[in-house]
Amino acid sequence: MNRLREHIEEIISLTDEEFDYIKTFFTFKNVRKNQFLVHEGDEVKFEFLTLDGIYKVFYIDQNGKEHILQFAKKDWWMTDYIGFFKEKNATMFVECLQDGAVACLTLEGREKLASEFHKMEYFFRTKLTNGYIALQQRIILLLSSTPQQRYEEFSKLYPDLISQIPKKYVAEYLGVSRETLSRLYSNNK
Amino acid sequence: MNRLREHIEEIISLTDEEFDYIKTFFTFKNVRKNQFLVHEGDEVKFEFLTLDGIYKVFYIDQNGKEHILQFAKKDWWMTDYIGFFKEKNATMFVECLQDGAVACLTLEGREKLASEFHKMEYFFRTKLTNGYIALQQRIILLLSSTPQQRYEEFSKLYPDLISQIPKKYVAEYLGVSRETLSRLYSNNK
Repeated sequence: MNRLREHIEEIISLTDEEFDYIKTFFTFKNVRKNQFLVHEGDEVKFEFLTLDGIYKVFYIDQNGKEHILQFAKKDWWMTDYIGFFKEKNATMFVECLQDGAVACLTLEGREKLASEFHKMEYFFRTKLTNGYIALQQRIILLLSSTPQQRYEEFSKLYPDLISQIPKKYVAEYLGVSRETLSRLYSNNK
Repeated sequence: MNRLREHIEEIISLTDEEFDYIKTFFTFKNVRKNQFLVHEGDEVKFEFLTLDGIYKVFYIDQNGKEHILQFAKKDWWMTDYIGFFKEKNATMFVECLQDGAVACLTLEGREKLASEFHKMEYFFRTKLTNGYIALQQRIILLLSSTPQQRYEEFSKLYPDLISQIPKKYVAEYLGVSRETLSRLYSNNK
């Protein structure tokens, strides 16, 4: 609960009364490794604020191949955003890679908070701005031509993630083979 | 000017007085084919609302290869967002592909509008939400394994763009060769 308040107050200030009200919009959930928060085909009920743990957002293509869209760690928001915002069933999965906890917010709750508090509207806009930049960086990472460049860019952007995520997932995220990635890891030690 | 008001009023309602004030934050500019609105290395002064014309946002990698991040047409917002939001010099270019016009907004103006009008904060949040979804779809397009899938996904998302943009740029955007793209075009006629 405190973590939620600290997270919001990194951007805006809240009185105790405001936070007491705002927190009623959230539900809290402990999550275990390998547990799914979103499953393809299901309704996307929540956006999640990661309070603890590591997660991956991925989808499986027509050929059964898994593609990782994003990772998430403490203080990051995540869900199947296409499903969440468009109120369509999930085309993605959100899976826990390391035990943790999340705060869950519905779309209705999100819109209500933003409409009742101008500063919460500002908070969500700021978070979206940061998310938008992160996605552009993700695209540049994907467009970058060599595995070496992709790895370097990823290490620069997320130095702490690289040590916490199994190599096979990093390889999948970067779209490089595990062998290539292992070589890059050892070159950069 | 009317176009700007219509664009904003697709999401929120404005009184005449409000719009008269809001429009003072924008400057208007005609743009010719091949003209640059943002140039790598320069300050990113504006975010642009496309009133008319077609544009591409791209960057050039260390090997001199061009990568297209996005196209923009009427009613889309565009700039080098990483430079714009982080107030850093541009790492990208925004170039006009077809004569048009844009409305230009500074970051300071954007923040002032959002802070003075809760509904403009809502407007920008909504636009960012749509932009966020579009970027996720762009990532899925890049992760999709075959040129055929990329082309189909692009045609589905932007049926009008496909006829207006030179094939070589579509090929570059999709990361496929021009020969492959030509084959896909003729298969889909």
